[in-house]
Order: sequence, then C-alpha cells, then structure tokens
Amino acid sequence: MKRELRIGLIGAGRIGQLHGNNLVCSVPEAKLSAVAEINLNDSVIAWAKGLGIEKISENPGDVINDENIDAVFICSSTDSHAELIIQSAQAGKHIFCEKPIHTEVKEIKKALEEVEKAGVKLQIGFVRRFDHNHKKVRDTVASGQLGRPHIVKVTSRDPEMQPLKYILTSGGIFMDMTIHDFDMVCYLTGSEVTEVTAYGSIMITPEIEQCGDVDTAIVMMKFKNGALGVIDNSRAARYGYDQRTEVHCDKGCVQVANDLKDTSMISTVDGVICEKPTWFFLERYNGAFIAESKAFVAAVLEDKEIFVGGADGLISVYIAMAAEISLKENRSVRLEEVM
Amino acid sequence: MKRELRIGLIGAGRIGQLHGNNLVCSVPEAKLSAVAEINLNDSVIAWAKGLGIEKISENPGDVINDENIDAVFICSSTDSHAELIIQSAQAGKHIFCEKPIHTEVKEIKKALEEVEKAGVKLQIGFVRRFDHNHKKVRDTVASGQLGRPHIVKVTSRDPEMQPLKYILTSGGIFMDMTIHDFDMVCYLTGSEVTEVTAYGSIMITPEIEQCGDVDTAIVMMKFKNGALGVIDNSRAARYGYDQRTEVHCDKGCVQVANDLKDTSMISTVDGVICEKPTWFFLERYNGAFIAESKAFVAAVLEDKEIFVGGADGLISVYIAMAAEISLKENRSVRLEEVM
Amino acid sequence: MKRELRIGLIGAGRIGQLHGNNLVCSVPEAKLSAVAEINLNDSVIAWAKGLGIEKISENPGDVINDENIDAVFICSSTDSHAELIIQSAQAGKHIFCEKPIHTEVKEIKKALEEVEKAGVKLQIGFVRRFDHNHKKVRDTVASGQLGRPHIVKVTSRDPEMQPLKYILTSGGIFMDMTIHDFDMVCYLTGSEVTEVTAYGSIMITPEIEQCGDVDTAIVMMKFKNGALGVIDNSRAARYGYDQRTEVHCDKGCVQVANDLKDTSMISTVDGVICEKPTWFFLERYNGAFIAESKAFVAAVLEDKEIFVGGADGLISVYIAMAAEISLKENRSVRLEEVM
Amino acid sequence: MKRELRIGLIGAGRIGQLHGNNLVCSVPEAKLSAVAEINLNDSVIAWAKGLGIEKISENPGDVINDENIDAVFICSSTDSHAELIIQSAQAGKHIFCEKPIHTEVKEIKKALEEVEKAGVKLQIGFVRRFDHNHKKVRDTVASGQLGRPHIVKVTSRDPEMQPLKYILTSGGIFMDMTIHDFDMVCYLTGSEVTEVTAYGSIMITPEIEQCGDVDTAIVMMKFKNGALGVIDNSRAARYGYDQRTEVHCDKGCVQVANDLKDTSMISTVDGVICEKPTWFFLERYNGAFIAESKAFVAAVLEDKEIFVGGADGLISVYIAMAAEISLKENRSVRLEEVM
Repeated sequence: MKRELRIGLIGAGRIGQLHGNNLVCSVPEAKLSAVAEINLNDSVIAWAKGLGIEKISENPGDVINDENIDAVFICSSTDSHAELIIQSAQAGKHIFCEKPIHTEVKEIKKALEEVEKAGVKLQIGFVRRFDHNHKKVRDTVASGQLGRPHIVKVTSRDPEMQPLKYILTSGGIFMDMTIHDFDMVCYLTGSEVTEVTAYGSIMITPEIEQCGDVDTAIVMMKFKNGALGVIDNSRAARYGYDQRTEVHCDKGCVQVANDLKDTSMISTVDGVICEKPTWFFLERYNGAFIAESKAFVAAVLEDKEIFVGGADGLISVYIAMAAEISLKENRSVRLEEVM
Repeated sequence: MKRELRIGLIGAGRIGQLHGNNLVCSVPEAKLSAVAEINLNDSVIAWAKGLGIEKISENPGDVINDENIDAVFICSSTDSHAELIIQSAQAGKHIFCEKPIHTEVKEIKKALEEVEKAGVKLQIGFVRRFDHNHKKVRDTVASGQLGRPHIVKVTSRDPEMQPLKYILTSGGIFMDMTIHDFDMVCYLTGSEVTEVTAYGSIMITPEIEQCGDVDTAIVMMKFKNGALGVIDNSRAARYGYDQRTEVHCDKGCVQVANDLKDTSMISTVDGVICEKPTWFFLERYNGAFIAESKAFVAAVLEDKEIFVGGADGLISVYIAMAAEISLKENRSVRLEEVM
Repeated sequence: MKRELRIGLIGAGRIGQLHGNNLVCSVPEAKLSAVAEINLNDSVIAWAKGLGIEKISENPGDVINDENIDAVFICSSTDSHAELIIQSAQAGKHIFCEKPIHTEVKEIKKALEEVEKAGVKLQIGFVRRFDHNHKKVRDTVASGQLGRPHIVKVTSRDPEMQPLKYILTSGGIFMDMTIHDFDMVCYLTGSEVTEVTAYGSIMITPEIEQCGDVDTAIVMMKFKNGALGVIDNSRAARYGYDQRTEVHCDKGCVQVANDLKDTSMISTVDGVICEKPTWFFLERYNGAFIAESKAFVAAVLEDKEIFVGGADGLISVYIAMAAEISLKENRSVRLEEVM
Repeated sequence: MKRELRIGLIGAGRIGQLHGNNLVCSVPEAKLSAVAEINLNDSVIAWAKGLGIEKISENPGDVINDENIDAVFICSSTDSHAELIIQSAQAGKHIFCEKPIHTEVKEIKKALEEVEKAGVKLQIGFVRRFDHNHKKVRDTVASGQLGRPHIVKVTSRDPEMQPLKYILTSGGIFMDMTIHDFDMVCYLTGSEVTEVTAYGSIMITPEIEQCGDVDTAIVMMKFKNGALGVIDNSRAARYGYDQRTEVHCDKGCVQVANDLKDTSMISTVDGVICEKPTWFFLERYNGAFIAESKAFVAAVLEDKEIFVGGADGLISVYIAMAAEISLKENRSVRLEEVM
C-alpha cells in the first residue's frame, strides 16, 4: 500500500509558498498536487510550476472538491479560514490551517463542529510547538523529571515594528502577537490558564494609541495546577527575534536561549562581541515549519492524534480576549468570564 | 589631614560580623573601634578581639555616645533599627543601616525626620545595588545608550526554603524577600513604581497557608516613565541563588546571568554539564558587601551624596504593602493608595 | 536569457544523494537532469525518479558526454576522482569534485592540468569553508579588523571511532581526517603553511597500530606570514562532532564554538545540563553543503572565480604528506621537502 | 592547644604585600608577625604597621632566625630564592617560595637537598593550581570519571606586552611565562612530560629579536601516559588575561572558559556585547592566592603533604629548558636530554 498524502494548497502568499516548498522538498510522504490562489499572477504560477504542481487555480473550491486530494493547507487570509475549514471538512479533507482560526469565537466553534462532524483531522499552525528549543522545554516538563511546574516565563519580542497600517488592522497585540505565547504557556505547562492580568504601554509608536492598542505588554496568568505564568512582549526588540522560554519546577528550572546566527565571539580591548539572534520567524522557525508539516502528514497517514488541534486554537483566542478586557478595565479577568 | 572614618558596630550577628570583617580587611579608610552586642558572649568577644576592636559592650548606647566614633553600622534585629537610627542621628553619627528600616511606615518616617534634622548621612543596606552584574545593567540604562527603558525583569529565587518558623515571622514574602527586588527595579529603571499587581501561589510548603503567605509569586508593575516591570520569586530554586536582571529599552536589551561557581563544561555522551550558580547571598554578594561599605565610608569622608538612602528604604516598603493588598484583594493597586 | 545550470551527478552514494537532494530542493538555478552510479540498484533508481531525474545510467560516460549537461558533481569513490575530472574537463564540463582529488600528487597534477587546459571551473568539496561559524572567523580575519593573524587553532574531533576496516584503508588520520583541518587553517589565515610537526598517539583503539596509524594527534605548523598554528584531532570525542576554530590576531581574537542541538539549560541541585554539539557532519554541515552547491552554481553561471579550487585540494595533500613524515621520523618537516 | 602559624614575610614588593594582606585578612590560622624588605622605605613600613606587624626589618636574617616564627614566605627577587630557602631550612622554618625557585638547576637542587635534610615543608607558588576553574578540570580528570586523558590544551595569553626592559631580563618566554603552563599541564594530566617541540614567532615587538626571544609561541608535548598536550602563548592578547584549559579523555572532555568581569549581555542592532575576561593575574587569581596561603598554613599545622612542592618547581624548569633547545635547534627534545 502506498503511503502518500495528496495535498492541495489554498493561498500561495508568503506563508503558503513556505509550506509548499517544505512539502515538496522536505516531506517525502507528501505530494503537493494542486494550488488555489485568488490573486493568481505570473509569479505564483511560475513558482507552482517550478515545484511541479500540476493543477493551478484561482478558485479554492477546485482544490477542496478535487477527488485526488486527501488534505488541504489553508494559508489564505485569516477572515477566510473558518469558511474554508467548513467547506474542506464537508468535502472530507483533512485540514492544516494557519493560526488563528478566526478572531470570532462563534465562527471558530462553527468550524470546529463541522470538523468533528466530518471526522477529519485539523491541525492549527502553532509552529513554535515544533521548535527544537521550546519542544525541549516542554518535553523536559512533561517527562516529570523536574516535578510540577511553578513558574512559566515567555519572552517574545519582534525584531522591528510592523507598519502602522498592519498594526491598525491586526486585531491588537494580544490577538495578533501574544496569541502564539498564549499557546506556548499552555503547551509548556500542560495546564489550563484560569485567569489573566495584562499591563500594556505605548513606548515605540505613539500613533497606535488611535486604535486603542499598545506596543509593549506584560501578561500575568494563573493556571489550574497552581502554577503562575508571565509573558513579556515588545513590537520592536531591534536586535532580532527574541524568543526565550523558561519553566521553573519543584526540582529546578529548564530554560532556552535564542538561536544565534553563528557562535562567534570576537574579543578585543573594546569588549567581546557575539552574534545576534536569528532575525525573524522565517529564520528562527525554519526547521519548525518543516517539522509541523511532517507531523501533520504523519498523523493523517498513520491515523494518529493531532498534536495541536482546534481546541488549542480556540483556547488561545479566549485568553487573548481576557487579556484585552484586563488591559482595558485594569483588572484581573477569569477565563470563564469570556468562555 | 588624616582621612579615616571611626566606626562603631551595633549588632554582631552573622551580618554584623560580615560587615566588621569587611571594614577591617577591605576598607583601608575605616577604623572599626567599637562594637555593641546585646547578646554578648565569648564567641563574639573573641571575634572582636581578633579584629583588634578595643571597645566591646553590651549596650548600643556605649557606641552611639562614644565621642571617638564618627559613624555606626546598625546590624541589630529589624525592630530595633528605627530607634537606633534616631539615637544615632541625635548623637550626630553618620549611619549605615541594614534593610529594612522598619516594617511600619510611621516608624520609618520618624527615623528619617531625625536623620534629616541632624544633617547626618544614612545609607540603607540594599547590597545588590553594588553587585557587579546588576550595577552593569543599571549603568548601561542610566548612560542612555539604549534609550528609554520599556520592560524591566527581575528573577529572584532563593536556593532553599527557609525554616517554616522563619517564614511565619518574616512579614510575608513581599516584605521579606521581594523587597530587595522592589528596590532593584527602581534602581535599574531610574523611575518610580506607580501601580502593582501580584499573583501568588503555594507550590513548595503547604504549611505556610496558615499565615496567609505564599512561596511562589509574580509581581507586575507600572512605572511613572511608562515602563512595565515584572519580578518572579520562588522560595526554593534548588539549584542555587537565582539572581538575574534585564532591562529592555528603545534600542535593545541589557541583561545579566548568574555568577557560576566555575566556568567548567564537562561534555560526555550523556550531555554537557556546567556549574550551578553560587549558592546563596554570602557567595554571590560577597564583593557587593565590600563595595557598599567602601561607598558609605567614601561618601562620609568626602561629603558626597549617599547612593541609596532613607527614601529608597521607604519606597520599597510602600511597594511591598501595595503588593500585599493586591495579592489579598486580587486587584491592581496604585501606590498612592498606600502612601 | 535563462539562467539555469544543467547538472549531472556521478556517484549516488550517501554524499552523492545529499548533493542531489540539495541541488533539487535548495538551488533553484540548478537542474539535476542525469545521474550515473556504477552500482545501480532499485533504491538508487527510486531515489533518482523521486527527484524527477530523467536520465539514469550505470556509466559515468553517459553523463560526461551528455550534450545537455553543463556541469558534473563527482561523488564517486576517491580513486576514480582524478580520471573522472580528466574526462569531464576534456568534455568541457564544469566540475564539482568531492575531496580529496586523489591521494597521489602525480594524479592530482595531471587532473589539474587538464582542467586548466580545458578552461573549465573546478570546485573541491571542502564544505567546512561554507559553514556559518568558520566562515565568520575567516571573514573577520580577512576583513583586517583584527590586524595580522598570530595564532590559529583548530579543534576537530569525530564523535565515534570509525570501523577498524575503514581506518585500515583510510590512508591514515592525516590524509583522511586532518586534511579538512589543513584546508581550514589555510582558509582561516589566508596564508601558506611552510612547516609542520606532528605528534600522534594511540589512545582509543590499540588495533590500529598494525597499519602504522594513530587515533589521537596534534599538528603544529608555521605559516609564511609568521603565524603559528595547531590542530588537535581525536577519532572519538564521544559527545558529538567537536568543530571549533580560533584565530588570535594583533588586536584580539575571534573564535567559534560548536553548534548545539538546542539551547536548553536544565538547572537542578545536581548541576546544570546543556545540550551536546550536533552529532556528526550531516547535522553540523547541513547548511554548508547547500551553500557550497549554491556557490558552485553561481560561480559557473556568473563566470566568477571558484572559491576553493584545485590548488587548494593539492596543498592540503602536501601538508598531510609532510605531517606523515614528521610523525614517522619525529622531526619538523618543511613543506618544500614534499612539493 | 593553639592552632596558629606564626609567619615571617621576606620581600614586601607587590607580590609580598599581596600575600601579607591575604594572610592577615583571609587566613585566620596565620599570624603575620615579622617582615623583612631589603629596600625598606616609609611606604612599606606604613603598610606593615597598618597590618599590625610588629617586627619590621631590612635584614631577611632577622626573620629567618626569629624563634617566634614557624614559617617564612619568600617573595624577594628570584635570584635570592635558593639562598633564602637554604637559610630558612637550616633554621628549621617551613617555607612558601614564589616561583621559580631559581633558573639554574644546580641551585634548585642544592636548595631542595637542604629542605629535605631539614625535614621542613616547602610549597612553590604555582598559584594557578588553586584557581577554581583549573582545579575543577584537574579534579574531574583525577576522579577518573572521564577515563584516561588523551589531549590537554592550555591557552595562556597576557593582556599586554610587558616593557621591553622586563622582557630582556626575563629569561625568555618559556622560563618567564610558559613555566606556569608547564606546571599546569602536569597538574591537569597527572602525568609527566617526556618530550617537547616548540615553535615561536615574533609578531608583536620586533625589538625582542635582539635577545633571541619570541612573543608568540606554541609548545607541543608528549606525556608518559601516552597523552599529548599543547600550550599556546601570546604576550599581548589585548582583551584581557586569557587563561583557558581543556582535557579530552576516553569518555569526553572537560574545559574551562575565562572568568569575566560581569555576566552582562547588551543586545542591539549592532550586535551583542559581552564583558571581557578579568584584566590580569591579580584579578583572575585573587581567590587562588588566598587559597594557596590557606593550603600552606593548613598543611603545616596539620602536618599534611604539600600540594605543590619543590619537585614540581624543578620539573617545570626542565620543561622550559627543553622548549628553549627545541625552539633554537628546531627539533623535538626529550626531557631526559636536559635532566
């Protein structure tokens, strides 16, 4: 019996092409045979042909309803995710969907119901779970070798401010940026967030005050198992993509530092200069993107449980919602308030 | 003209003897000529004689009223600090006082008023300000080379749980342990805390619930200059004394790691083993204790401003009080509420 | 005009398949269209078909004489390299050849003459030159920012002993293993080795004494520009692939550490455990293999100078020969003695 | 019975005052009661009085023949060491002597014979053996946990060139500077050097060619147990005092990095700046100087074996002599040739 997963890609922008390249070059069991991009142009067509993709379309339905496709990668704009999940599930396709599923809980729930009804698999693109560093923290905690977790800390800073235009429509720092970290703290502790308090400040770009957003934030949280957590975010670290995690437990602490561009150390009378962290998510999470595609393909082919599914996508949205309320009303917010 | 500061020591317990040794061995301009210890015994007398101290007494007044003494080091029990400061100020002595000045704001204020009235100098024993690592963070921020501070983070964990008996009378984790960190965040940012939220949990010793205390805590804070801060505390890190600080600013980040026992790296097929942090405050802050004594002696002899004075001692107590209210009432507390 | 280099692969063993995969997946300007493998079998055919290679043969001549091929990758056994270079040059193909060109100077010279006569490009597979770490050392030295190099140090240790059978036919530690490091020291200093002294010892596998080889070695060298160098080798580091380089110069030192599997640090009362170096050359030099293929393709397409050519391949063999004489005769050997 | 060692200091220059301060402040069992300095002046007298030393003299004999003295610290100029050891041994005093004992083997042997005859203890001031880092390497190797040593590496570079005047009379780089490293390799491996080859170069100060010396050197050595070793030296590292050691063994490797001024890391868009190594031996080996004095005092009081004795002082001189011959005659030199 042939073990191959026939995949169709929906959305061939930056992240879609990234997944496409990875599926072709690094996931031997995957066969990328169709792509749909509503803004189809020569560049996209050339890219798809270069990868040997035979079926190229402007219409996602052409991929979803293709009988020779087993699974879809949904990499289109966020507002289309929920609807495409529903159509794909109804067509019996397994689904990999970029995060977030949607910014509205109602839409997410509708999509998840269809997935469940159809009995297909759904994986959400929380790529950081597949990063060699964070995974090591999680595996160490999950092994129990350090006992119960007490404190989880996540430092997550983008290298440079996104364009103001992007920020204004991003849904706010918690839904756009911290949502990765909300998933991360749940992943690392293996427990559920019950309550959050968020502090925010505008330190980088005064203009974002217009839309009630902040560019610098710290969010503190409580977990069901008694642990406490904290995330600190900045929209502009300047020195690169700062992605560190740490869990302190009964018997000690596990932490990971950033990946650096190289391990050089230049020592002179002026000081010792080392390299900066890798620049942004494409560099830092390159291996993790491949690993998440491999994990999805393997889970479908071997009918195993998906590692990060729809429920994980939903819970992160709840936490982001609670953080937003906390920031606006300057109070601690229990998660059940927004669920 | 001779530049020598004649010092009398009040309290010759562990911390008092530490200061005494440092003054004799490492501060050439200091002359330790008297000591008072209310629980005087053979061991203390032998220690004092070994250092060449001529005047040994059971009565602090003998030191305070000695005309041949220029300054006192108050290292007695906390509840005696305020009263001894008042007596010393009235006697015209310059004062070094271990932290905290007192746990009651009223007593602290009374003491500070007498100090001001007398025109003597008062230095509070926030020794961590003199640590080579934290000082480097502060100097880097203060230099302005990184622009304004956005985020300040302090990790502060004791190696092992103190005896329950100690915890029960300690005044609680914020007044006993985090108070150092409250001073540290002010020192590092050069700004004032305006609001705090505290989360706490009992993860190590269930028995401390009796006294309404916690053993694990995270405190988030806002600063006047817009910066945000966070401190995480544990009563039992197990691997040593975990003392790390970090300030993220406009142009980048400055952070310091722990001092390690040695720089060894043992690589085998089982992994790479490095050394743990220095065990506790005597090891970690050994050099800082000497530096703070030198700074006090120099400030008095050269009539310069004290680096960490009574106001700093008071503000840390206010922050601790606000954190306690926040923890108990599960809400954000503005500092002005307790001032 | 289309910028594409049509490549034929000769030898589809482990290293040949590695290059084949990289050319297809990571070098967009390369088109791998033919492969020849004298031990052709189903597995090789399946691999080649999977990559979309159309022409699969048992005969290297089929690739070399293919008019639709611009360049060849010679990845066959070492003893065939020189002859295949000659044939490829005569056929007007550009050549990428795995190191070493040959173990006999006479054969190497013959091959290089043909390359020169044909005016084709030849790149030797000294992959470590393309490693992000070593390249940073070299670029720092070459930039002149540290002044002239004084001392160059290379630590190069394999993770585990190769099978005795491999060792017996390997040509000895210097020709088999240190040859990479001989190229590295030339690359890092930008100067020529003039003299070497080698010390060797059998510390790991007593059996290799039979063939006059050693498993542990240190080689010291002098450079034309006055610098001194040292390489230390072990056939079995146990903890992974130990690949560190360092150059000390007029104004300071540049050095690189190993790449680690992850950046984790697990701190407990038993110590602090970090990760080991990446296991072996496939992990460590993965990115470097891709970079060297890209460099070759770019150099041919843009008619630029090859970064590491035939002369570099020859000089490393000379140094290895001198080291062998030094070890056997326990004396310092000038390079001109073997040239 | 009182456990106190009454010590007399001979030579109160920089290193003598360092030992004097350490004995008074950090070695409770030591009582420094006399000092002799042939160039006695007001500054030395003030220093001695400040430490409470009662007997101050210009004549070493006054210390050596003092009946109230148990042991002497010989910190005078090198050429006086052997003679003072002889006199002290004949007077029945235990002896701490700064390295080297002498540069002439004949003188050293005469001194060691007198020490043996008198049955007194003699410790040589190889202070690096007491450094927390190098000691950890040695203890790890000596414990046997890594199996037999294969390769020992020492990096030893001074921060800045000594004055040419100093270099000219220093006895050459091997006798003056590498001698510490020769002792270190013996200490780390627990084995004896049997053969050395030295390469040297003048990279820093052309003027030192006049006296046949070099400023940059690498020395390779063989040990009785089969291990190989290498030392690299520079008279001017520029970035501080570079003191690293490493031993590779059957089961893995133990290495130590430099101590740094602080653990800071400043990350900006221009790079990540860390601190330099501590500047020179007074900073780096501060704790080691105290530890060696404590070890000497304890060994005498408890009548235990001295950790680093006269034989160690002699063997290092032999190795230095062999290295000098190797450099001059450009050949490998067996140690028995100079013994």
